Amino acid sequence: MKIFIAQLNPTIGDFQGNTGKIVEALQRAKKNRADIVLFPELTITGYPPEDLLLDEEFIDAAYGQLEVIRPLTKGLFVAVGLPRKNPLKREKGLFNSAAVFSDGELIGFKDKRLLPTYDVFDERRYFEPGKGEPLFTFLGRRIGITICEDVWRHSGTVGYTDYLSDPVLDLQLERPDLLLNLSASPYYFERKDVRASVLAETAKTLCCPVVMCNQVGANDKLIFDGHSLFLNEKGEVIQVAKGFVEDDLIVDLDVPLCPCRAPENGIGDLYKALVLGVRDYFYKQGFTRAILGLSGGIDSALVASIAKDALGSENVLCVALPTRYSSQGSASDAKEQASFLGIELRTIDIDPIYQSYLALLEPHFNDLPFDATEENLQTRIRGMVLMALSNKLGFILLNTGNKSEMAMGYTTLYGDMCGGLGVLHDVTKLNIYQLAEYLNRKQRVISEAIIKKVPSAELRPNQTDQDTLPPFKRLDPVIEGYIEKRLPLLTIATEQTCSLEEVQAIVRQIHIAEYKRRQAPIGLRVTQKAFSKGRNVPIVQKWRFPSS
Amino acid sequence: MKIFIAQLNPTIGDFQGNTGKIVEALQRAKKNRADIVLFPELTITGYPPEDLLLDEEFIDAAYGQLEVIRPLTKGLFVAVGLPRKNPLKREKGLFNSAAVFSDGELIGFKDKRLLPTYDVFDERRYFEPGKGEPLFTFLGRRIGITICEDVWRHSGTVGYTDYLSDPVLDLQLERPDLLLNLSASPYYFERKDVRASVLAETAKTLCCPVVMCNQVGANDKLIFDGHSLFLNEKGEVIQVAKGFVEDDLIVDLDVPLCPCRAPENGIGDLYKALVLGVRDYFYKQGFTRAILGLSGGIDSALVASIAKDALGSENVLCVALPTRYSSQGSASDAKEQASFLGIELRTIDIDPIYQSYLALLEPHFNDLPFDATEENLQTRIRGMVLMALSNKLGFILLNTGNKSEMAMGYTTLYGDMCGGLGVLHDVTKLNIYQLAEYLNRKQRVISEAIIKKVPSAELRPNQTDQDTLPPFKRLDPVIEGYIEKRLPLLTIATEQTCSLEEVQAIVRQIHIAEYKRRQAPIGLRVTQKAFSKGRNVPIVQKWRFPSS
Repeated sequence: MKIFIAQLNPTIGDFQGNTGKIVEALQRAKKNRADIVLFPELTITGYPPEDLLLDEEFIDAAYGQLEVIRPLTKGLFVAVGLPRKNPLKREKGLFNSAAVFSDGELIGFKDKRLLPTYDVFDERRYFEPGKGEPLFTFLGRRIGITICEDVWRHSGTVGYTDYLSDPVLDLQLERPDLLLNLSASPYYFERKDVRASVLAETAKTLCCPVVMCNQVGANDKLIFDGHSLFLNEKGEVIQVAKGFVEDDLIVDLDVPLCPCRAPENGIGDLYKALVLGVRDYFYKQGFTRAILGLSGGIDSALVASIAKDALGSENVLCVALPTRYSSQGSASDAKEQASFLGIELRTIDIDPIYQSYLALLEPHFNDLPFDATEENLQTRIRGMVLMALSNKLGFILLNTGNKSEMAMGYTTLYGDMCGGLGVLHDVTKLNIYQLAEYLNRKQRVISEAIIKKVPSAELRPNQTDQDTLPPFKRLDPVIEGYIEKRLPLLTIATEQTCSLEEVQAIVRQIHIAEYKRRQAPIGLRVTQKAFSKGRNVPIVQKWRFPSS
Repeated sequence: MKIFIAQLNPTIGDFQGNTGKIVEALQRAKKNRADIVLFPELTITGYPPEDLLLDEEFIDAAYGQLEVIRPLTKGLFVAVGLPRKNPLKREKGLFNSAAVFSDGELIGFKDKRLLPTYDVFDERRYFEPGKGEPLFTFLGRRIGITICEDVWRHSGTVGYTDYLSDPVLDLQLERPDLLLNLSASPYYFERKDVRASVLAETAKTLCCPVVMCNQVGANDKLIFDGHSLFLNEKGEVIQVAKGFVEDDLIVDLDVPLCPCRAPENGIGDLYKALVLGVRDYFYKQGFTRAILGLSGGIDSALVASIAKDALGSENVLCVALPTRYSSQGSASDAKEQASFLGIELRTIDIDPIYQSYLALLEPHFNDLPFDATEENLQTRIRGMVLMALSNKLGFILLNTGNKSEMAMGYTTLYGDMCGGLGVLHDVTKLNIYQLAEYLNRKQRVISEAIIKKVPSAELRPNQTDQDTLPPFKRLDPVIEGYIEKRLPLLTIATEQTCSLEEVQAIVRQIHIAEYKRRQAPIGLRVTQKAFSKGRNVPIVQKWRFPSS
C-alpha cells in the first residue's frame, strides 16, 4: 500500500488556487500509483483562516470545492482538510474536519477533537470538538484519522491545557492498521524533534504506522515548515519530507526501510524559515520588490541577505540614509555589504531635512535639551524617505528591527518601526549574530566589519546600544526566560546569575514598551513565543509596571 | 434586606488600587447599613486581564487580596470577582470566579459557567467552565450567584454560540430568593436595552429579584458603561446605576418602588463613552496632556471637544499644520473651533519641509507624476511634527481618524495614523455628524462652518473625500452591514438598494486596507464590531480580495 503525502503551501481563502494544488497532487499521486493521499489540516482554506470562518459564504465556498475534488479520487482513499458546518445545535457552529473520499465517493468526515486555544491558536473561537474515533476501511486496512493536536495530548506536550480525552487511547481500542494525521503545525526555532517524538508515542501505543502531512509555507506571521513524517509501528522515523518547500513524500508500507534521523531544526532552519516568511508574504500578495534601509549594522545586513534569498538580488533596493551622526565606517560597511549581496545601494543624505525640522520646531521646544525627540526625528525622516520611495516606485518596505529592541522599546514609532513586514521581530540580537556566522560559514555573506562593530543607533555622538540597554548577553536570556518560557522572575535571576532587580527592570521595560509593539508591522513568528502573535497583554495595566 | 452594588472602575493588574476601591466600597456599604455587597466580574484584576492570567504570580497576587478583603466583610454577604486556580486537572487551569464571603468568612466560590469566546471575548483561552448552581444562604434568603454570560444564554442573545447548558434553568430548580450577577459587559452604541431584557427574562423565569453589578471604565479599547441594574421578580427595571462613572446603587428589597426606564443608550451615551475612553487611557497611565492636529475638518474638531471634556481645555494643545493645499477656510475654521473650546491652537507651516522632501526625492522619483506619494508626504510631515512636540513636551498624541476612513484605508500609515489612541476609530462619518449635532443642541461646540463643509483631506488642489470614496451615505451602511452585522453581500445590496458590484468593491477595499489597520493605534470600541478588537482576519488572503 502506497501513501502519497501532499505537503502543500495553500494561501488563505484562495479556493481556486488551493483546489488547483489539490487536484494536481491527486494527479501526481495517481501517476505514482498511490493508494492513499493525505493533505494538511484545513487544506482547502489554508491555515489559519481566522474570522473568515465566521462568513457563511466562506464556509459554503470551501465546502463547494469537495465536488471539484471528488471525481479525481477514483481508485484512491483521500483525506483533505476543511471547515464544515456542525449539523447539530452545539456550542460552536463548525468542525475542523477531514473530508474522506474512497474510490470517487465522499464517504464521511472526521472532526478534530482537541482544539488548541492557547498561544497562537484560537480554535475554540470557531470550532466544536469532534467526537469518537470511527475507522475507515480501504483495501482491507483499517485506517484511523486524526487532525494535528489530536495526537499531541497523548505525549503531554501541549500548551497550558489538559484535555479530558485522549483520542490516541480511544483509537487504541479500535486497533487501526494505519493512522493518518492532517497537520498545520507551525515552525519555531529549536523545537527539537518534538513532532517526531509525539508521533512516536502515538505509533507505539497504536502499534501501527503513522503518517503525518504538515502544511508548508507562511501565512502572515506564522511559518509552517513542512517536514511531514512517516513513522513505523515501533515509532521510528522512516521518511521525512523536505522542509520549507512543497514536497510529495511517497511511502510504501510494504517496503521496509531503515530508520532515518528526524529533522535537526538548527540555525540553518531558522534562516530558511525567515526566507520563506518573506517570500510568501510577497508572492501570495503579488508583490515582487523590496526596499530597506541599510544602516551598516548587522540587522539590516541580515535582512538584506534574507530579502535577496527570498526575492532575488535584482528585486531588492537598499538605501543608506546618513546624518551628521552616521560614522564613516557605517557608510563604507553598508557599501561593502551591498556589494557582497549584489544589491543596489543608494545613498540619500537626510541631514539637511533634519536641520530643517530642528529650525521649524525650535520655537516650540522651549529651549529644552537634546533628547530622544531629536533621535526620533532622524529615524522618522528615514522612515518617511523609505516610505516615499516605496509608494512612488512600488517597493514593499522591510522592517529590520530585532526582538531584543522590540522587547525593550528601543525603537521609534513611525521611524525604524516602519514597514510591511517585521522580518526579525522574533529574532534576538544574539540569534542574529548566530545567523550571520552561519551564513558566513560557506562564503562571506555578512561583512566581517559589520559583525565585529559595537551596535549603535548612531543618533547622537558616540552612541552605542549599550548606553541604553543591558548587554545583549544579559538581556536576551531574560527575554527568553520571561516571554518564551514564562518563568518566574526569581528563577530567571537564579539561572542567569543576575540580580532580581535587574530582571524586574527589564520586565518592567518590556511592559512599558507594549504600546509601541501594538503599532508594529506584522512580525514573522519563529520562537515559542513571539510578541507579534500569541501574546495578548493590555497596554493600560499596572502588573509589573508600577507607574513611575 | 439591603444590597449595595459597588459599580467600580478597576485598572488591570492594579491590585493595590483595586483592593483599595473594594475596601472603601465595603466601608460605604456598612455606613449605609447594607447586608449584601456586590462587585463586578473579575473585580480584583479588572476585566479583561488577557494573558496576564497566564502568569502564576499574577493569579497568586490576585488571590492574596482576599485576605485583605475578608476582615471587612464582617456582618455582610459579599461577592467579589477574581480568577482562581482550578484545583482539578481539567482542560484549563483557571476559573473565572466570584469569591463569596459571609460575616467575615470566605465561604466558597461560584465559577462562571458560560465562557464567551467570540468577538472581543476569549475566555476559553484561560478558563474552564464552572459546574452547578449551589445557593448561598444569608439572613434566611437563598441567594444564587451568576457571572455575566451565565444569564445571557437564557434569552438567546449571545454571539454565534449555542451553549449546551442554561444556568438559569438549573437555578430555577433551586428556587432562589435573589439572584446576583457580577458583570463586565462592554458598551456599544445602540445596544438597546438588551441587558435589561436579558435580566428580565431571568427574573421572570426565577420569579425572584435580580441584581447586576457591571464594571465601569475603559481598559485599552473596551469601554464599560456601568448602568448596573436592579429588576424585581416580574422582570421590571426598578433601579439603574449611573452610566460612565463609578456609582453606589443601594437597593432595599423590602421597600417596593415603581418600575423605571432602562437606560436609553442614544447618541449622548456614545459621546460619554468616548470621553470616558480618553479619560481612562490617560489617567490610568498617569498622563495628563493631549496634543492633536486640528485640520479644520469635523473629525479633529470632535476629538478636540472629547479631549477637552476628558482632560480639561488647559490640558489640550491643538496644532494646525497647513501646506499650500490647505484652504484659507480650514485655517479660520480651526481657529474658530479652538476658540469655541478654549483650547490653545498653534500653527506650524509645513510647506517648506514638504518642498525640501520633494527636492531631496526628485532624483529618485524617475519623473513619475504626482500621486498618493506626495499626499502621504504631507500627512507624514504632520505626524512627525506632532510626534516631535509629543516627545519633547510630554503630550500624548490623539489620533483623529474615523471608522469610514479606517475601513477603506483612506488614511496614511505613519501620517494621519500616528497617535497613542484612536478616539474615533469605531465611529463612522455619519455618526460623527450626529455627535456634532448632539453637542450643538445646547450650545455651539462644533463650528457650523466645519459641519457644513465638504470633507476633504486637502492634500492636492480641489480635493474632496468623495473623489476617492463613495458618498458616506452609501459607504457607512455597507460598513455597518458587512462588519457589524455580518450580513451576506446580496442582503446588504438589497437593503441599501445599491448594486451588488458596489458592495463588492467596498468589501474588497476593506480587505485590502487590513494591513494598514494592523499598524493603527489602539482604537476605542463603541460598536457591535470594531476593527480594533474582536475582528481577526489575515492580511495575506484571497477571500473577497482577488489580487488585481
